[in-house]
Amino acid sequence: MVEIRMIPESEFVRVRGAVTDRFARHAVLCEMSRLNVLAAVKRAGSGHLGSSLSALDLVVWLYDEVLNVAAVGPESPDRDIFFSSKGHDVPGFYAVLHSHGIVPEDKLLMLRRMGGLDGHPDAGIRGVEVNSGSLGMGISKGRGFAYAKRKMGRGGRVLVMTGDGELQEGQNYEALQGAAHHKQSNLTVIVDHNKVQSDKTVDEILSLGNLDEKFATFGWRVARCDGHDMVAVDRILTEFAAETRRPQILIADTIKGKGVSFMEHPISLKEGGGLYGWHAGAPDDESFAKACAEVMGRVEAGFAKHGLGEVGTKVVVPAKKETAPPPLSVMNELGEPVSLAARDKHEQSVTTEYVADAYGEELLAIGARRDDVVVFDADLAADCRTRNFENTYPDRFVENGIAEQDMVSMAGGAALSGLLPVVNSFASFLCSRANEQIYNNASEGTKIIYVSHYAGMIPAGPGKSHQSIRDISLLGALPNMVIVEPGFAEETKAVLRYAVDDATDSVGIRLIIGPSPRMIKPPAGYRLTFGQGTALTTGADALLITYGPVMLHEALVAAEILVEQGIGLKIVDLPWLNRFDLGWLAECVTPHETVYVLEDHAPVGGLADRLFAKMHPAGLLEGRKIHVLGVEGYPACGTPVEALRAHRLDGASLAARVLEDRKGQ
Amino acid sequence: MVEIRMIPESEFVRVRGAVTDRFARHAVLCEMSRLNVLAAVKRAGSGHLGSSLSALDLVVWLYDEVLNVAAVGPESPDRDIFFSSKGHDVPGFYAVLHSHGIVPEDKLLMLRRMGGLDGHPDAGIRGVEVNSGSLGMGISKGRGFAYAKRKMGRGGRVLVMTGDGELQEGQNYEALQGAAHHKQSNLTVIVDHNKVQSDKTVDEILSLGNLDEKFATFGWRVARCDGHDMVAVDRILTEFAAETRRPQILIADTIKGKGVSFMEHPISLKEGGGLYGWHAGAPDDESFAKACAEVMGRVEAGFAKHGLGEVGTKVVVPAKKETAPPPLSVMNELGEPVSLAARDKHEQSVTTEYVADAYGEELLAIGARRDDVVVFDADLAADCRTRNFENTYPDRFVENGIAEQDMVSMAGGAALSGLLPVVNSFASFLCSRANEQIYNNASEGTKIIYVSHYAGMIPAGPGKSHQSIRDISLLGALPNMVIVEPGFAEETKAVLRYAVDDATDSVGIRLIIGPSPRMIKPPAGYRLTFGQGTALTTGADALLITYGPVMLHEALVAAEILVEQGIGLKIVDLPWLNRFDLGWLAECVTPHETVYVLEDHAPVGGLADRLFAKMHPAGLLEGRKIHVLGVEGYPACGTPVEALRAHRLDGASLAARVLEDRKGQ
Repeated sequence: MVEIRMIPESEFVRVRGAVTDRFARHAVLCEMSRLNVLAAVKRAGSGHLGSSLSALDLVVWLYDEVLNVAAVGPESPDRDIFFSSKGHDVPGFYAVLHSHGIVPEDKLLMLRRMGGLDGHPDAGIRGVEVNSGSLGMGISKGRGFAYAKRKMGRGGRVLVMTGDGELQEGQNYEALQGAAHHKQSNLTVIVDHNKVQSDKTVDEILSLGNLDEKFATFGWRVARCDGHDMVAVDRILTEFAAETRRPQILIADTIKGKGVSFMEHPISLKEGGGLYGWHAGAPDDESFAKACAEVMGRVEAGFAKHGLGEVGTKVVVPAKKETAPPPLSVMNELGEPVSLAARDKHEQSVTTEYVADAYGEELLAIGARRDDVVVFDADLAADCRTRNFENTYPDRFVENGIAEQDMVSMAGGAALSGLLPVVNSFASFLCSRANEQIYNNASEGTKIIYVSHYAGMIPAGPGKSHQSIRDISLLGALPNMVIVEPGFAEETKAVLRYAVDDATDSVGIRLIIGPSPRMIKPPAGYRLTFGQGTALTTGADALLITYGPVMLHEALVAAEILVEQGIGLKIVDLPWLNRFDLGWLAECVTPHETVYVLEDHAPVGGLADRLFAKMHPAGLLEGRKIHVLGVEGYPACGTPVEALRAHRLDGASLAARVLEDRKGQ
Repeated sequence: MVEIRMIPESEFVRVRGAVTDRFARHAVLCEMSRLNVLAAVKRAGSGHLGSSLSALDLVVWLYDEVLNVAAVGPESPDRDIFFSSKGHDVPGFYAVLHSHGIVPEDKLLMLRRMGGLDGHPDAGIRGVEVNSGSLGMGISKGRGFAYAKRKMGRGGRVLVMTGDGELQEGQNYEALQGAAHHKQSNLTVIVDHNKVQSDKTVDEILSLGNLDEKFATFGWRVARCDGHDMVAVDRILTEFAAETRRPQILIADTIKGKGVSFMEHPISLKEGGGLYGWHAGAPDDESFAKACAEVMGRVEAGFAKHGLGEVGTKVVVPAKKETAPPPLSVMNELGEPVSLAARDKHEQSVTTEYVADAYGEELLAIGARRDDVVVFDADLAADCRTRNFENTYPDRFVENGIAEQDMVSMAGGAALSGLLPVVNSFASFLCSRANEQIYNNASEGTKIIYVSHYAGMIPAGPGKSHQSIRDISLLGALPNMVIVEPGFAEETKAVLRYAVDDATDSVGIRLIIGPSPRMIKPPAGYRLTFGQGTALTTGADALLITYGPVMLHEALVAAEILVEQGIGLKIVDLPWLNRFDLGWLAECVTPHETVYVLEDHAPVGGLADRLFAKMHPAGLLEGRKIHVLGVEGYPACGTPVEALRAHRLDGASLAARVLEDRKGQ
């Protein structure tokens, strides 16, 4: 494994003390933070490098030369407020906070881990002002801070960084008009205009047109410069600070992946055949070593130039796949700890089956036979596995950019015209940002398929903005919306065929985004039947109903642990989250006094609520105990195992909870 | 009562046949439709006159001179698609459809009544293309139609009318950028730029700036003219039809209330001391007579000028307060129909207590003692009763315009700064349009009070876009959000004090917007207690738990009907919709085998779901039958009584349902 090195805060202090020219100093500090960004993301195994690097020169400049945060402390009410609306660039931001002693080294190196730093900004972290990662909210939040500073007579100004792709979100224009109308001259926006979205250029996805003119028509003072030219940035921000009538916006032309030659977008786009390769995810060992060598070379050159001697670095202890021991010992009924052999065995049986791949394959097949199917995307074509459809049927693929509301309402118009739209985004954004638009469409009685990718809590590294534990609740009260989550590849294809060919209502399909923790083999003769589930294990002592690959795996682990205790847990995969065949349900639950409903969702508004409402009038709750196991509180950030354990939803914890319940009886 | 007259379709046919100059013809047809708009709104008792009249000249012109809809029929796939995004102007739109024989006379006169025409457009009505009324979705939907026309090789173009206030919604800018990027030259937008929002000018609420330049920077072809000058409109729309590269937008400068002198905005604003008085609601008899006299004078002058003789009009039969008999006879246990004397008695006891007034009063009182409370508004200050606060504490009132997302996120920034935001809008818009923003704020752990006005199904005249039967479900899965709906004025004040002074979590307060059907007197010694409800009647035969003035009234009516049958129904007002005191709950339900939960909400995601989840683990469902009575399907449009009856949620139906259940036992 490649060695990871980082530069401790003390070296930043040394450089600041020694280099007096602020531009020369900035040049060295940037390269040092760049190295730390690479280290943090590499250790985490994921993170957004491209935009961390495009924004880094600006963020370093702000904290060293503009903001008073390091001077007055991140708790002072008179501090300048700075945050990034896009939030994806947070590894760079954390590196800068670390260089000022605000984020300690051990935290920096715990990016996306429990007890470390969330994968998107979280206001609970020292130095972080807001939760972000959901795009397009930042200028509005900045307006709130700017309003409060004036009202409360506090010092400091408010600076918000935005991406360029995120300017496709309509909320930005609400905020732009509001800030101008309210004459919020203590508000400055900096656009990290790196020209590249997830993997294509902004101009290709959905052009922003002439940004300078656009912002000017919204009443803002506008300036533009090279975002890596600090002389220009300094001049403009100084002018902005003296502005008393209008909010100000700096369009900073930056380079995505700046400072690592092969991550810079002109080269990366060319090498990727038009697709940018460094938006998210950690580099492999070879690329990492190459990147570090480049950056370290410049750090060393800077140190040499200023007579600073050797660069002090530290070797970073690499992350273990599993760092923490299980928080619970699994106990048998006598209270004795139990071996986790069964669990370990299954940890090794991890496969790389992606239900999203199965979705993409079936969608492509449907495209060949159904000319009325039109696929809508909000700049997540690779993640949502619609890229093959896009390339094969470009005239039936609509790219709306990061504009979920427009996407959903446009799909509504297409549906009224007799087309069958299949609308894709992450669950957190699709069901939430475009909720009223989904309601409006549904109220028209047309059929639309909404595919909510990245449903559920896992992966847990990106944090609360991306983990989706409310989406079932957000669609649940629509009278004509069937909500389904398949548990494995074959079921995914069957669910999509059902949605396209058989359903009369609109259909919400939940899909996890990551690999399935295990390849689930349904029983021989499996077929998807409306309102019915499939038993995956036998077991007479309790019934556990769940859905989706993540929770099915944890349930099966629990069953395997429990069987060693002589306890039989019957696991049922129930993909139908709000439509049930009552006869099947009665047959399923009747043999069991104890029923667990395991949710990859909050305990409110998910499958369990619907089961209670269905079972009670049928008398199926009588003499039966239903335990709802859902994601309580906000979803934890960390590795999948860390997050599942934190919520006591991993297999070992589930087994322990079953044992606790039996003891408590 | 004043006489209402309307002009039948045959007279429009006669004018079209006789007047050959299209501009002269248009002038007459407009005045005729104007009279019918007044008639329809007066008969309905509500409706948006101001924007119906500002847009009317344009809509009449479109249907007579531009669109092929009347020629090919509203079912032809090759028809031009036209609709209004704002939807509020639908009385004018219906009048025009009627003048072309698409909407029959009996429907036109059944505006906002069951079996008639929805208060906002509904695609189920002949000639209506989309459901609208939720602002800012129209251009996106138009994009869907325009895309489908091209893809399917259909004839016709797409024209979308928007308001100007609704251009504050960010989704418009998503749609503008998308349509330009996709070169949707078969899409035309017409802005009914009448300069006035709910009751203030657009420039005062939240200025749109230079609209011409703004749209041009979004890549659209832009033109502007007097929207009442059809020569100019004709020239521009003809030019637009020949455009092959860009979508086009016509900014039509119009006058709100056009054609009724005292409803025209320059005069009305002056007379209202800066507040426009004719946005919504029907005119009183005197104003109506004056308006009709003005308009009829011009109709008659037009007929005279063109030698058309007498204007044929019809006297409109006024609406009865209650048109339909109860759909169900109420039967006693022997199956005999039962007198509705009890009900009638309470129909007469209607008071004008508004919980919204109590909210406004308490908010003002809180403003005096809590300097940290800041009130946010999205152009509904009068409806939400925040106008007094605005006028008293202007520096603590933030007007965001019709931009709920910006409002909520701005409140989030203010809350992070230590202020206590009280955020107001209609439930349908606030909980839905800004859902992801509410989640983002809540995930930061700050406390914000969201006041969802117009919660529930009543009033039912405005239709699905405004009736809110999903809002509890939309907030329910937030772990730190307490949801409350007070049942009467005193409770409303107590709930707001709880939210401001005592709550540690964020609080969602639901309020009905209309008058309370009865003044509820709580028992002596009433005080709001966290998680507990208040019994309003005694009764040993069944328990009914509900919330909010609308359903409490219906429940009490049911109890009063049932008591005549010797059946005692205990009514409990439970304002806490997702937090319960288990001890109280157990005491409340224990004496009863039969429990009704009556929802002013869909049966999914409301109070009943939470009660099931709370009661089951405590064993409180055992031996007990819970009946959930909620708004099934989409909420019906009509008078309150019509809509409640349609869902079998009025008191008589509730009583009948209780009797049916007893027979079925």
